[in-house]
Amino acid sequence: MTSPSQFHGWLGYDAKAAQGNLQWAPFTPKPFAETDIDIKITHCGICGTDIHTLRSGWGPTHYPICVGHEIVGHVTRTGSSPAASRFAIGDRVGVGAQAASCLQDGCQECSAGMEQHCPRGFVGTYNGRYKESGYWSMGGYADYIRVPAHFAVKIPKRLKSADAAPMLCGGITVFSPLKNNGAGPGKRVGIVGLGGLGHFGVLFAKALGCEKVVAISRRRNKENDALAMGADEYIATSEDDKWEKNHSRTLDLIVSTVSTPDMPFSGYLRLLRTNGQFIQVGAPEDNLPAIAAFALIAKGCKIGGSQIGSPKEIEEMLRFAAEKGVKPWVQTRPMKEANRSVVDMEDGKARYRYVLFNEGEDSAKL
Amino acid sequence: MTSPSQFHGWLGYDAKAAQGNLQWAPFTPKPFAETDIDIKITHCGICGTDIHTLRSGWGPTHYPICVGHEIVGHVTRTGSSPAASRFAIGDRVGVGAQAASCLQDGCQECSAGMEQHCPRGFVGTYNGRYKESGYWSMGGYADYIRVPAHFAVKIPKRLKSADAAPMLCGGITVFSPLKNNGAGPGKRVGIVGLGGLGHFGVLFAKALGCEKVVAISRRRNKENDALAMGADEYIATSEDDKWEKNHSRTLDLIVSTVSTPDMPFSGYLRLLRTNGQFIQVGAPEDNLPAIAAFALIAKGCKIGGSQIGSPKEIEEMLRFAAEKGVKPWVQTRPMKEANRSVVDMEDGKARYRYVLFNEGEDSAKL
Repeated sequence: MTSPSQFHGWLGYDAKAAQGNLQWAPFTPKPFAETDIDIKITHCGICGTDIHTLRSGWGPTHYPICVGHEIVGHVTRTGSSPAASRFAIGDRVGVGAQAASCLQDGCQECSAGMEQHCPRGFVGTYNGRYKESGYWSMGGYADYIRVPAHFAVKIPKRLKSADAAPMLCGGITVFSPLKNNGAGPGKRVGIVGLGGLGHFGVLFAKALGCEKVVAISRRRNKENDALAMGADEYIATSEDDKWEKNHSRTLDLIVSTVSTPDMPFSGYLRLLRTNGQFIQVGAPEDNLPAIAAFALIAKGCKIGGSQIGSPKEIEEMLRFAAEKGVKPWVQTRPMKEANRSVVDMEDGKARYRYVLFNEGEDSAKL
Repeated sequence: MTSPSQFHGWLGYDAKAAQGNLQWAPFTPKPFAETDIDIKITHCGICGTDIHTLRSGWGPTHYPICVGHEIVGHVTRTGSSPAASRFAIGDRVGVGAQAASCLQDGCQECSAGMEQHCPRGFVGTYNGRYKESGYWSMGGYADYIRVPAHFAVKIPKRLKSADAAPMLCGGITVFSPLKNNGAGPGKRVGIVGLGGLGHFGVLFAKALGCEKVVAISRRRNKENDALAMGADEYIATSEDDKWEKNHSRTLDLIVSTVSTPDMPFSGYLRLLRTNGQFIQVGAPEDNLPAIAAFALIAKGCKIGGSQIGSPKEIEEMLRFAAEKGVKPWVQTRPMKEANRSVVDMEDGKARYRYVLFNEGEDSAKL
């Protein structure tokens, strides 16, 4: 395998791209560095962040842009650096939402394996700007991606590519806070929101052996799905007047994948047991509703945030998923259906993650 | 020593008591139980909660009331229960802000040594109601107190009574979150507010060996005191326009002893390093200001609350204080000056804790 000099992808040229106006077009990738690898993409999941970014929802996006940061494919070129030469041509690898960090010894975050919090050199897999070249990063709705090898991970054999892809952002975003906050035997865990992230939350919490997994959503329409994913209970907050009271003090940990100013935040906190924790992930555009200090003090509770995960954590998640047979609910679609899929995703139709695949690689079967 | 059938204390009869209208009068203590001890009080610190309660600031107070929950004295009577018979007549003991909890085996909190979070049986040292007898608890601005022995602790010999007394609420309220959130060598800790609690925060953070202790207050007028207590730095948030920027990402842990809706909460969070924690203690009447979820997610930070500490934690704190020679800044006053002291406390004159003492016991020297 080799890499072409021009890559092709679904490019957005302005905010209307989010409405299904992506155009398949060539683009020039960043100059190849010895720390880079090229990947011929077979699969790319569709993440909510893709659509926010396409419509400049979190500030101005740099157009033209190619989004997608749940990428799986095969290595076609490797640099000579230690990080890049870990990979051989043909290796099946994945890339999540981060493509670079400063990686300096003096960086508290990078040197402690918290690259995702690097304050100096964080570059997203798309809409980020590489310091060395000034090139903008381009994502995975494409045929190829060029990316610093430090942020690529090998995919374990037992995981299908279509299943591994959405784990690289959606999966790790919930796996990391579950793992880092003690989800496991003896712990009762709640997952707020049952979209792409939330469905991974239920799957991973169950696979981690939690004593109880509770899916928490507004309406009851996803209850059967949640139970099929392994949830032990389901709370529909807008269809049960007494949910706060009836489930008071029942959970050790809540991972929330939704954040809107009108969410019943104080109610969620009532569900926590003493020393319980509420971790917010995902959509960061909103303020959390104001809460009484007393809600935290009386039970010694904590509210936290978590952002994706480091490459090492992603590797750990993939090994864990392979070992435990974690099976995400994905709907695969040919890459040529990117526009329709973006629109369907935005309309909330995903059950629970769309994964685009490039045809001609027999990749739908992988 | 024996206990009288009637105790005497400074009683408040209505909300005006908070303005210095306490009256010295007799009262009948709860019926003696075999799980109780009686204590002849030598010292009692004046805590902000005393005044809030006297004026029904946190909801209706049950009058007449005797406040005070930073109590040191000598045992004059012990019950026959295991908890009570740990003590001998004459032992020097202390009682903090909690007088009872359910102490049932089936209680998650009590059985895990988190009595201060017991959801079923928490009784405050004053203004609480004992389930068995229906009697209201009466505090330490008095000559005697009768209290369940489980919530009394022995005072180490090397601690003076006047120094130990304010540790029993003010001290443990900050010691517990410092200890439980890793304050120690290599950690940089901020203390928000330099009142009674905050001054203990600086003293304990220093004694715990923190790499850096930063006192954070609105104005600069307490800077010299803070440095004398051991603070390495002082931030005056209303006198330095660039404090947020200049001190960004410098602290691992912040313990906040103040909570008002107009506090610069987002600014405090800017001071946290990656994975940093902000723990709110003390005055729980206000909402915390609303913050952006992103403020927590981007750095993986947490906001928590902490409420006093268990008897075991109090014992640990006292041993630690004795060993390290932690010396609080207290101003002792005769018990007969309770009214003036309450007014001075409310006027913010304490530097940094008033401790009332009963004369005739030579107790001012203890």
